[in-house]
Amino acid sequence: MPEGTPKPAKVTVSAADLRALVSGIFAARGASEADAATVADALVWANLRGVDSHGVSRVPRYLELFDKGESVADAAVTVQRPRAAIAVIDAHAAPGPVALTRAAAEAVEGARAAGIGWASVRGTVHTGAIGYYTSQIAAAGFAAVGVVAGVPNMAYPGAAGPAVATSPLSVAVPAGRHELVLLDMATAVMALGRIAQLKAAGKELPPGVAVTADGQPTTDPALAKVPVPVGGAKGAGMSLVFEMLASGLVANPIVSAYHSGSKEGRRHRQNAFLLAVDISAFLPLAEFTAAVDATVDAIKSLPAADGAADGAAAILVPGERGRRSQAERAAHGIPLGAKPWRELTEIATALDVPVPAPLG
Amino acid sequence: MPEGTPKPAKVTVSAADLRALVSGIFAARGASEADAATVADALVWANLRGVDSHGVSRVPRYLELFDKGESVADAAVTVQRPRAAIAVIDAHAAPGPVALTRAAAEAVEGARAAGIGWASVRGTVHTGAIGYYTSQIAAAGFAAVGVVAGVPNMAYPGAAGPAVATSPLSVAVPAGRHELVLLDMATAVMALGRIAQLKAAGKELPPGVAVTADGQPTTDPALAKVPVPVGGAKGAGMSLVFEMLASGLVANPIVSAYHSGSKEGRRHRQNAFLLAVDISAFLPLAEFTAAVDATVDAIKSLPAADGAADGAAAILVPGERGRRSQAERAAHGIPLGAKPWRELTEIATALDVPVPAPLG
Repeated sequence: MPEGTPKPAKVTVSAADLRALVSGIFAARGASEADAATVADALVWANLRGVDSHGVSRVPRYLELFDKGESVADAAVTVQRPRAAIAVIDAHAAPGPVALTRAAAEAVEGARAAGIGWASVRGTVHTGAIGYYTSQIAAAGFAAVGVVAGVPNMAYPGAAGPAVATSPLSVAVPAGRHELVLLDMATAVMALGRIAQLKAAGKELPPGVAVTADGQPTTDPALAKVPVPVGGAKGAGMSLVFEMLASGLVANPIVSAYHSGSKEGRRHRQNAFLLAVDISAFLPLAEFTAAVDATVDAIKSLPAADGAADGAAAILVPGERGRRSQAERAAHGIPLGAKPWRELTEIATALDVPVPAPLG
Repeated sequence: MPEGTPKPAKVTVSAADLRALVSGIFAARGASEADAATVADALVWANLRGVDSHGVSRVPRYLELFDKGESVADAAVTVQRPRAAIAVIDAHAAPGPVALTRAAAEAVEGARAAGIGWASVRGTVHTGAIGYYTSQIAAAGFAAVGVVAGVPNMAYPGAAGPAVATSPLSVAVPAGRHELVLLDMATAVMALGRIAQLKAAGKELPPGVAVTADGQPTTDPALAKVPVPVGGAKGAGMSLVFEMLASGLVANPIVSAYHSGSKEGRRHRQNAFLLAVDISAFLPLAEFTAAVDATVDAIKSLPAADGAADGAAAILVPGERGRRSQAERAAHGIPLGAKPWRELTEIATALDVPVPAPLG
């Protein structure tokens, strides 16, 4: 960069262009056209929803996992259905969006057959935003629950160092007049990506979000090493039982393997499960979605806490912030930092994948 | 009480005697012998586990609900099974333990038939400790998830007053050498019962557990009116989607009815669901329980955070504290405060139910 050039600013890229770019990269690295499009959809969805930490900035990490053999671009996901309501998807190290999109479809199939469908995923990598998959299930008219288990990166009360993972929980239900209600939360107080941003900027952390390597509370970005679970024993306990459900059922334990100290145990990998509930087995779908609408309306009509001028604006239901971002970014493009954009374009150029022109 | 008599101290009662007492009271109020025993089992279990707020101190409240017609001692619970994996239990205002114990059995039946079983409960009252039911499912060799929805009594970010309920989540999985792992957590930072104790004693509350009627944070026991959800939007969001799942699927919305302002909407009632997962459909049960054991061992073997002398003692897994209490109280009796004991004995005497002699 010539001297005097200002620091590169953010660029804005349309969702369609970004999908084509990411899809092109994964296809060039050996993924089928369908799988490449699936990965691109999931990552760009996270950017649309404003969850940039789970979006296209992850592309270089997937390619690094391909290079190391820890993920396989063209892995053929296999499915077993031991019981009417249960599917077990072995990812064979396929990228998370490929395995989880298949799991969402299998969960719905189980729910159509038996009323409830459970789909476990064994041995994938980076699932992206779990809310993408529960949203897909809810969009099909089913209620959805999803959990991901991963390598320990979060504190546990009383213990020093990373003990359990920031395993997310997502619940999605379809609504009527409103858009679907979508809870998608890590079991940590603050997202890892946000802590990393504050640390990179040398900014003091809020109290109660991270501890030192010895397990002591700190707000010092230099000393903060391990994020803290939400509600102490509650978030830590949720993460631990999610590991037992997501990893234990597919005989691929991550937490105990990690703490065994073996190199293999520290390898990046994830397990997950998705649950679909056939609402129409209980009551007409329209009656359910009307009840969800009424509940959303009741919450948004509550009197605002002091200082909030307008209750409806100050009171958000799960997924509302992401939906606003999605509307804004679908219309006006996705802002990307200079670094992720440079990384993507360099990767694409090296792979002879066309690079779209930013909108601005 | 004669002048000069010291304040009555706690009494200690054996679990068996307490069960017989509570069972006798419910039978005398019209419950079948079986239902009366079921209620007694659930309440005494909570006392054994050290969760006294959900134990036999609730008996007067059940009787009050019987008197008001809001609960029915001899209600016949009805069950529909619209799909292989789904049961819908209509409690017809039966006490929670009767409806939820039936739901646990139905969830297991669904899991035996289809691999996964979901049992929704419509229109019950006071379920007691939800962990009792998930424990029953886990003891049968299944993984269990449970949720209860109730009348709003918890804050919601941005809103003043009670907005959503402190709806609990429970997850239980069977272990091998260890006892089952049991998470049972309210979506509030601090249990209502503990806040009430601090308020009654005029003690300052810890920061971040309650807000004023206007929704402002406070530690003043006189001003604290509404408990705060764990993790702010996370706990509030969990509670809201639990309401949609537990109440929406059985067409018995509680949150929207409550906020409609109608008297009927403020009536105490609860909905719930229990999920059972047939572990043996995925892998041999012994392999799963060995993985749970290994995960428990890994967590309890972590280096202790500074200040903790012994990691294994300082690091607890979900359910461990309750299990210790259960062992202690099963062996040496259940300590009860003077007030709940007096209430129970007065009720029993009025109903000609024999009152056992305390152990001490």
